[in-house]
Amino acid sequence: MPPTQPTIGVFDSGFGGLTVLRALLQLLPGANYIYLGDTARLPYGSKSHETIARYAVSSAKFLREQGAELLVVACNTATALALKDIQHALPIPVIGVVEPGAHAAHSASNHDQARDKVVVIPSEPQSNSSTNHVLVLATAATVQSHAYTRALNTLGLDAHEKACPLLVPLVEEGWINHPVTDEVLKIYLTEALNEAPKAQTLLLGCTHYPLLEPAIRRALTALNHPLTIIDSAEATAQTVLTHLGLPAHSSKLKAPGSQCTFYATDSIEKFERLGSAFLGQSLTGVRHVDLGG
Amino acid sequence: MPPTQPTIGVFDSGFGGLTVLRALLQLLPGANYIYLGDTARLPYGSKSHETIARYAVSSAKFLREQGAELLVVACNTATALALKDIQHALPIPVIGVVEPGAHAAHSASNHDQARDKVVVIPSEPQSNSSTNHVLVLATAATVQSHAYTRALNTLGLDAHEKACPLLVPLVEEGWINHPVTDEVLKIYLTEALNEAPKAQTLLLGCTHYPLLEPAIRRALTALNHPLTIIDSAEATAQTVLTHLGLPAHSSKLKAPGSQCTFYATDSIEKFERLGSAFLGQSLTGVRHVDLGG
Repeated sequence: MPPTQPTIGVFDSGFGGLTVLRALLQLLPGANYIYLGDTARLPYGSKSHETIARYAVSSAKFLREQGAELLVVACNTATALALKDIQHALPIPVIGVVEPGAHAAHSASNHDQARDKVVVIPSEPQSNSSTNHVLVLATAATVQSHAYTRALNTLGLDAHEKACPLLVPLVEEGWINHPVTDEVLKIYLTEALNEAPKAQTLLLGCTHYPLLEPAIRRALTALNHPLTIIDSAEATAQTVLTHLGLPAHSSKLKAPGSQCTFYATDSIEKFERLGSAFLGQSLTGVRHVDLGG
Repeated sequence: MPPTQPTIGVFDSGFGGLTVLRALLQLLPGANYIYLGDTARLPYGSKSHETIARYAVSSAKFLREQGAELLVVACNTATALALKDIQHALPIPVIGVVEPGAHAAHSASNHDQARDKVVVIPSEPQSNSSTNHVLVLATAATVQSHAYTRALNTLGLDAHEKACPLLVPLVEEGWINHPVTDEVLKIYLTEALNEAPKAQTLLLGCTHYPLLEPAIRRALTALNHPLTIIDSAEATAQTVLTHLGLPAHSSKLKAPGSQCTFYATDSIEKFERLGSAFLGQSLTGVRHVDLGG
């Protein structure tokens, strides 16, 4: 266990990374956290590699300047497209969400009950039960990078990636439990399952999507195609613990006085209002920072 | 008539402004055009005044540096929040889309058939037919600015503005004629008409929305509430003609060899692919420009 409270930087293009911070706060409540939402330049998910890398590196450097000793890239798009750029630019450990998510999918595929979210076994027998197929829902940019396919293939899993550009706007509209969102999910999942009918595991490859988990379960039930649902927030938090030499599932730093500091590059008011749903608790005291652009 | 071909800069956060360029090309095919889509920083519609003004001014300055002698801010959000900032920053005439759109709504309200898009008279008699109510659909940022309300009130019209955050993502997903889009429009229009039951005119306050005009007509028919639909693209092009001292509806510069040059701050490939639908013709030779950020 480190002798002092580590200061952990957490970065996302917007609010979704707060689901990762939420998992970190549960596993590691004694650390100090500095969160940056690059809201003036979101969304990253529809933009090009060069643009995303430029935005992500400048955001990561800001968090390092604020004292981060370890950086969590709590954004699937930034991880998929710019993790190496960020790692090259910073002299501190940088952990993304793609590899932890892939490992969680691997554990779930192997054990069928690796975590409490595993609720159902596919009702139809698979033609080859020893080969596990993972369906990944993500933004267009994450899908185009094929970062999840590479990470899952390395672990011996087959992957099918599906871009779902409307899900982030639907979450940000607040239509978490809404007939239109159910219909959009049914369309995306029908297309995805037609292309990957053997899928047993569904990996949520965007930090906005955990807020849609109940709607995704409804859509899968309506399609009569239950899947094990995995999101990478908790898996990423576990990876941070491992990196700090702390035991998984049970670590709590004992030092009191931990702090959370929040920065946003666009409106503070909007960040506080929307962010609370992602963090699972009220969010105040956000500071504005101008990263150019 | 100007002695030489004017060079007109046209600016939008993305692709929507191409509907304005399309109208300009029809009315003024002999001018030179330089179009900038600030796609690396889109969408503007969900961001704050300070951020939008910063992005818009840097985009406008770029077009001036490329030789624009007159600038069209072909983006409702940038016009609503940053027209004065741009006008202060540039030594050339700057024309936005809000005032032309408001004037077109005024003409339609006064004449009930000012343009060929006027197809139906409300079936139910209005309690006060001399007061005209305009319903404006726009992005969240445009609505919050109340720029349309101010412009319409100045013309003696009542205004009700309705934020429709999902419409731009639906257009960009390509779901122009799609049951989900029909359903979303029905929800937004039902809410808006409950709040503004006397509306006779519908002003499309975002340059993406003209692509949804058939879907909007379907939704209004389903709601049994026909409205006169106005978009500001053609009205803005007319304003440019007037500013250049050319007669409305009929002007064509005779000089040959006009040029269109396109710049985008994000992926060129995506700009060419998506932009064609907005411009109404194929779009190639787009150049990339980095405006920082």
